[in-house]
Amino acid sequence: MAASARGTMNLGVFFKNTGHHIAAWRHPDAQPDAGVNARHYVQCAITSERACFDFLFFADSAAVRDTKSYETLSRTAQYTAYFEPTTLLGALAMVTERIGLVSTATTSYNEPYHVARRFASLDWLSAGRAGWNVVTSGNAAEALNFGRDEHYGHAARYHRAREFVDVVRGLWDSWDDDAFLYDRESGRFFDPARLHVLDHQGEHFKVRGPLNVPRPPQGHPVIFQAGTSEDGRELAAATADAVFTSELTREDSRAYYKDVKSRMARHGRTPDQMRIMPGCTVFCAPTEAEARERYEHMQSLIDPVVGRAYIADLLSLDLSDCDIDGPLPDRPSPRSEQGTFRNVMNLSRRDGLSIRQIYQRLAGSHGKLCLVGSTTQVADVMQDWFESEACDGFILQPSTMPGDLDHLAATLVPELQGRGLHRTAYEGTTLRSHLGLARPASRYKQPA
Amino acid sequence: MAASARGTMNLGVFFKNTGHHIAAWRHPDAQPDAGVNARHYVQCAITSERACFDFLFFADSAAVRDTKSYETLSRTAQYTAYFEPTTLLGALAMVTERIGLVSTATTSYNEPYHVARRFASLDWLSAGRAGWNVVTSGNAAEALNFGRDEHYGHAARYHRAREFVDVVRGLWDSWDDDAFLYDRESGRFFDPARLHVLDHQGEHFKVRGPLNVPRPPQGHPVIFQAGTSEDGRELAAATADAVFTSELTREDSRAYYKDVKSRMARHGRTPDQMRIMPGCTVFCAPTEAEARERYEHMQSLIDPVVGRAYIADLLSLDLSDCDIDGPLPDRPSPRSEQGTFRNVMNLSRRDGLSIRQIYQRLAGSHGKLCLVGSTTQVADVMQDWFESEACDGFILQPSTMPGDLDHLAATLVPELQGRGLHRTAYEGTTLRSHLGLARPASRYKQPA
Repeated sequence: MAASARGTMNLGVFFKNTGHHIAAWRHPDAQPDAGVNARHYVQCAITSERACFDFLFFADSAAVRDTKSYETLSRTAQYTAYFEPTTLLGALAMVTERIGLVSTATTSYNEPYHVARRFASLDWLSAGRAGWNVVTSGNAAEALNFGRDEHYGHAARYHRAREFVDVVRGLWDSWDDDAFLYDRESGRFFDPARLHVLDHQGEHFKVRGPLNVPRPPQGHPVIFQAGTSEDGRELAAATADAVFTSELTREDSRAYYKDVKSRMARHGRTPDQMRIMPGCTVFCAPTEAEARERYEHMQSLIDPVVGRAYIADLLSLDLSDCDIDGPLPDRPSPRSEQGTFRNVMNLSRRDGLSIRQIYQRLAGSHGKLCLVGSTTQVADVMQDWFESEACDGFILQPSTMPGDLDHLAATLVPELQGRGLHRTAYEGTTLRSHLGLARPASRYKQPA
Repeated sequence: MAASARGTMNLGVFFKNTGHHIAAWRHPDAQPDAGVNARHYVQCAITSERACFDFLFFADSAAVRDTKSYETLSRTAQYTAYFEPTTLLGALAMVTERIGLVSTATTSYNEPYHVARRFASLDWLSAGRAGWNVVTSGNAAEALNFGRDEHYGHAARYHRAREFVDVVRGLWDSWDDDAFLYDRESGRFFDPARLHVLDHQGEHFKVRGPLNVPRPPQGHPVIFQAGTSEDGRELAAATADAVFTSELTREDSRAYYKDVKSRMARHGRTPDQMRIMPGCTVFCAPTEAEARERYEHMQSLIDPVVGRAYIADLLSLDLSDCDIDGPLPDRPSPRSEQGTFRNVMNLSRRDGLSIRQIYQRLAGSHGKLCLVGSTTQVADVMQDWFESEACDGFILQPSTMPGDLDHLAATLVPELQGRGLHRTAYEGTTLRSHLGLARPASRYKQPA
């Protein structure tokens, strides 16, 4: 294909210890003890930087997942035990020079002052490469680690998140960019007129400030979000620099893209101030048949107990007494949010799928887009999504780490580079520059 | 002198951005923008590791100091704006191999689950070199950043701290050392029988656990404390692996040493399970006269406004209307804790000191021990304190960074090495091994 009129797309890479696929750790290409293996992450970060990705991305949870059955959990490597990501990103800042460093931190069980400090600190350590993925915790196990019996309701979580982000951004503006004078002669270390006290008093937080970190190199570290609900879309339109999405078809993704970008105007923002990036698992090879073989091998490693538990979690149903090769039982949804439940039920009825067939379809890529084909075919789909404004790029989810990351860097990346869809060298030094986002002015410098 | 019968002493180094002296940033040997200068800290860490110090140590505060007068604060570099230390230590773990990495984190405005995670993560990143300095916040400015109007009272802070440390230690034991199996064939990632749920419900915290980080390489990262009050001494005797002390004379330090080590038995501990290390600023040179010159030059850089404010803070008095060359005013202490107030007042009356003379005595080393003399004289005093069981070693406080750190590494360190008081190469790889402390067993493996 010819070079795209849209230029290069944005490409991030999702770092999940042994890999993104639910059975990754059982694959010979995965590092089984990746969770707290610093060398593993250093190597993966270096590989990712050589591939000129915009950023590496960490999910996070402040709990061991699945407090219902450690017996089932003991068969997976995901969200059990691993590095706290902001300390790990401090380390990765030292072994990389250009790639962005993005981590999740929940707004539900953190204090804005601590979060503002850690990401400002990371932005300084990395000379402007930090990003914060803002989430609300929908995980009851986290609540139990922070003195609560149950987690916040959906609306309350988003309300708190909105105020949380506003406080963090205010704290990042505590010091003007030119506040520090270092004037040994006069004895003036900083100019007190360029220091601002936030004095925030809101519904959820009372935070005086100022932050005890200078204004970050990027002004504000890049704000990521993953909102799909109505509340999530509004939060993204109001505050997100980049959105990590889950749409499975080009048309759904185009609709999402149009909807969220059109909401931005109401918040005084323009569409170019946000990047929309679907998560994407890729199984590619020189031929489609070989790619399918890679995919089938990976899928064959899914432990039926783990697969069934994945679907049970998704539906909030107990399926432990159900035959894996039988259909889903005919039970009502125990939760008020019906969207996922209805989608999965419809899929299973329509295609007459067993529980095994359902988890085979959904568990591998954690419900995100999964492309299986020759390297050319996969690049065609990605280019098509990009050019039709279904997205601004993708967050690649290597199914194993380091194996599939190495594979994508050696195959898909040069294919995309050959089409002019991906850079061959970094143009800038900050995450904002990789994403084509402007450096925000301080709220104390905005035109009145 | 002959080699000491006690062997080598423990030596740590206090990392404070531009240096430990209150006027450090004005000295030509200091890096003025040290606060968020990663390269500065990398260089200082490498220098410290070449000098074979046991650890580097960071203080911390979750606020900009001194919310009363930013005008005064603007003349100092200390506790204004700087790296959040656990993210910085993540970075320093990558550029060092042996030296211990110790940071402060307050128990007053943190959650135990977050603190347990971050230090466990650092211990994995550094392969067993992490230490946590447990403090309670006596700083009203911190309270204002976390939704409170005033900080906790003294007793409540220590009560909370005791429970906090207990929860953190319990969380560190969540996984047995051999919990992870990585058995691809059987599909067993970990053994659920080797996972423990803390289920803590106390007066201050309710934390279910388990921690989502494997048991740290050191079992538990090393616990530091700095308790001098009755509550502080008890907390140290119950929980500290190392204590950072402030006694100014050998006899006072011997009394402290004896008192705190003798309290340990009540908590089922033996004296060899704790290291007591006074903070110590050193001005040394080939001759005493040259050392005194170094000292006087440093002292001459103290801004009178900053010096007076330091004494005002110490006494909780407003001295802004007082003549710097006059005596302290005759006012009563506004606080319930009288110890420091009485000591400073007695010193000023006894020696007939002006406010300037008082801050010249106290502000430079922040009230800690300050040794000025030829390198031999300084080493003599250190050896004497060590051999008379006034301490197990020292935490050196370089008055400027990097300048004085380089100087101490080039002068005092070889002098101590020549006496057999300091190692010339690391024997072990963990902070516990540098300090001669055993790796703690899990609470779930203790004999009944």
